[in-house]
Amino acid sequence: MRIVALLAHPRASSFNHALFDAVTDELRARGCEVLAHDLCAEGFDPLLRADETGTVAGAGAAGDALVARHREELAAADGLVFVHPNWWGMPPAVLAGWIQRVLAPGVAYKLEHADGEPEGLLRAGRALVLNTSDTPEERERDEFGDPLQRVWAACVLPYVGVGDVRRKVFRTVSDATAAEREAWLAEAREAAAALVG
Amino acid sequence: MRIVALLAHPRASSFNHALFDAVTDELRARGCEVLAHDLCAEGFDPLLRADETGTVAGAGAAGDALVARHREELAAADGLVFVHPNWWGMPPAVLAGWIQRVLAPGVAYKLEHADGEPEGLLRAGRALVLNTSDTPEERERDEFGDPLQRVWAACVLPYVGVGDVRRKVFRTVSDATAAEREAWLAEAREAAAALVG
Repeated sequence: MRIVALLAHPRASSFNHALFDAVTDELRARGCEVLAHDLCAEGFDPLLRADETGTVAGAGAAGDALVARHREELAAADGLVFVHPNWWGMPPAVLAGWIQRVLAPGVAYKLEHADGEPEGLLRAGRALVLNTSDTPEERERDEFGDPLQRVWAACVLPYVGVGDVRRKVFRTVSDATAAEREAWLAEAREAAAALVG
Repeated sequence: MRIVALLAHPRASSFNHALFDAVTDELRARGCEVLAHDLCAEGFDPLLRADETGTVAGAGAAGDALVARHREELAAADGLVFVHPNWWGMPPAVLAGWIQRVLAPGVAYKLEHADGEPEGLLRAGRALVLNTSDTPEERERDEFGDPLQRVWAACVLPYVGVGDVRRKVFRTVSDATAAEREAWLAEAREAAAALVG
């Protein structure tokens, strides 16, 4: 299986990096081809250009070489992995921009009318989203309404044809002990194994 | 009253620009000082640096001059206006990054512990969010769960002390007639007038 795995966190010592390394290692050990991208480290430009704002006509060739590469890899992927922190109910801007630039019409979905029902174009049927958070679960649910769950599992992935969306949130990370982090890395490996099992 | 008004759309001919112009014009006509920023046009860099990822300790001086200016203006604002499209349930990356970089600890909120309750620091008590969308209202509510409403009205603005959050969504924009757009611009002016009334 070919997996596209994306990491969005600017600090190399972050727990997100540890999660990403554990998951990509587990997938490779299971024979997957993993196309792994640390979006911050590779300098992905998240700013959609004026000529990329269309939603109905096919996007045509990307003007940005890195965007073009991500679109090609995405089209050929069997599964997707996203690792990022919850920042204000959103992914880091670099990943919000990846979604906005890479998931282009004609690449990731097809629309007949701007307000119509999309046809998802990705062949990847499954995705795993791993998030870190400092918000306790009850507060995230009752006070914030967990917008990230809606973004990934309702707005983004089903729209492009990914029906099997799995998400795990590790919390609260800032005050976690070394033992908790080890257990979470093991959980992340299990989730990765299950994704391709 | 001093209002900080932010626009996030890369295409100068977009309806978002028309909304922004109408709202800032209305506010100025009513005697407000409007600090207006077209984030795409001014080249705001949305990428949080590794040393900006803390949430408890005060952020200290911003390394980026534009981020520093936005933080200063924000601290002195009486009200806020945001104009942007709904892209995949999120603001454009440039505005996601503005939130992530400008709303820093010690500037916009104060936390004792990473997983604790924040103390909002902004003096602005009110905000108006104007969005454009191509998703019909029923579908946004029932299928997507309107993550943008949660982001602005639960995750972001109350966290930094803005209790009065007003939001209007204009839809569906791509197929709107000239008459509909004119009516929406008038509605946007009314909402701006009410914000400072």
